[in-house]
Amino acid sequence: MATMMNSTVFGTVVPHKNPTILRPLPCSLEELFCGKVKNYTHEKKIYDSSGKTFTVHKSTLQIYLKPGWKAGTKITFPKEGDVIPNIEPADLEIVIEEEPHPLFMRENNNLILRKNISLLQALVGFSFSVPYLDGSEFAVDVESLTFPLTPKVVQGKGYLSQRDGSAGNLVIFFNILWPKVLTEEQKSILKKGPLSECEYLGLL
Amino acid sequence: MATMMNSTVFGTVVPHKNPTILRPLPCSLEELFCGKVKNYTHEKKIYDSSGKTFTVHKSTLQIYLKPGWKAGTKITFPKEGDVIPNIEPADLEIVIEEEPHPLFMRENNNLILRKNISLLQALVGFSFSVPYLDGSEFAVDVESLTFPLTPKVVQGKGYLSQRDGSAGNLVIFFNILWPKVLTEEQKSILKKGPLSECEYLGLL
Repeated sequence: MATMMNSTVFGTVVPHKNPTILRPLPCSLEELFCGKVKNYTHEKKIYDSSGKTFTVHKSTLQIYLKPGWKAGTKITFPKEGDVIPNIEPADLEIVIEEEPHPLFMRENNNLILRKNISLLQALVGFSFSVPYLDGSEFAVDVESLTFPLTPKVVQGKGYLSQRDGSAGNLVIFFNILWPKVLTEEQKSILKKGPLSECEYLGLL
Repeated sequence: MATMMNSTVFGTVVPHKNPTILRPLPCSLEELFCGKVKNYTHEKKIYDSSGKTFTVHKSTLQIYLKPGWKAGTKITFPKEGDVIPNIEPADLEIVIEEEPHPLFMRENNNLILRKNISLLQALVGFSFSVPYLDGSEFAVDVESLTFPLTPKVVQGKGYLSQRDGSAGNLVIFFNILWPKVLTEEQKSILKKGPLSECEYLGLL
């Protein structure tokens, strides 16, 4: 068990306090987007006056996730540490962690999506449905040409800023997939088609 | 002028020697590829016995560049430093530097070329002429599809290795240029063409 050690400040005996206890709370990107009340099961030891035997006390702490909270956000429950005679119980700090998501990544208040598209889609445009963090779906239409390394930004579809209440963006990066093989006949059709007539960006 | 300071080694007075003088010699990629005799104009001061007055002596040193020499190669001319009474003249070290080239870069013994091609060329193949470092030209034929970030390697067209006499490669990176704009008509032709029929790499 912990040692009993007191400090003296200006002649007054101040009970020793153990260092703050940090505990991670993994949250999904959906939970941090929508907000949620999460339960956290907390255990602490309560020592008797001898300081040698203890009972374990289990409690459920409720954490009110606010929409937009980030990894690293801390919620403090004061004096939730073990109860030991002559020692002030430590504080408990719950630290928000972001769980990996199968589709999205988060960068600050932006939501990042990577999507494979074919070369044809990159040239002629396309639309697709995004299964969103609040359970809804919405359509993204890309009418113009998609250039390599140039993301599509959907304004306001990111996380709420805790600082000023503004919304981040959904940033979609496209991975343009290439034809596996083209036959000689296909090549000769392409040579006579639109790609032989159009103007190219920066061709010397 | 330099100070006169001697050292004693095993009872013998060893004349002080000034630190080696380093001088850069910028060389073109062509010169380092083909080899060349380069002249280097060297000036040194020759002090009289008083050590207070000197005359300037100009000479032309010849440097025999071997094919394949790299930046950092050093050629030593012993005792070519200033002539000062009671001091052993310093050595002169000529250090090879590579001048920037308008077309090529060098990485070890490989020659790197970056070339813009149109998306059509990437799909249907193309050939082009490379103005080479020895003054010749040679043709590079790319018959298959060019994939983004995948270079074409032409074996043996790089620099000679000074270590084992083998030759490096010419590595050509293609920058695939995109159509600036496509009309609705061009898009509808593309939608019915080979790019709508072919199999794509890794499309889910």
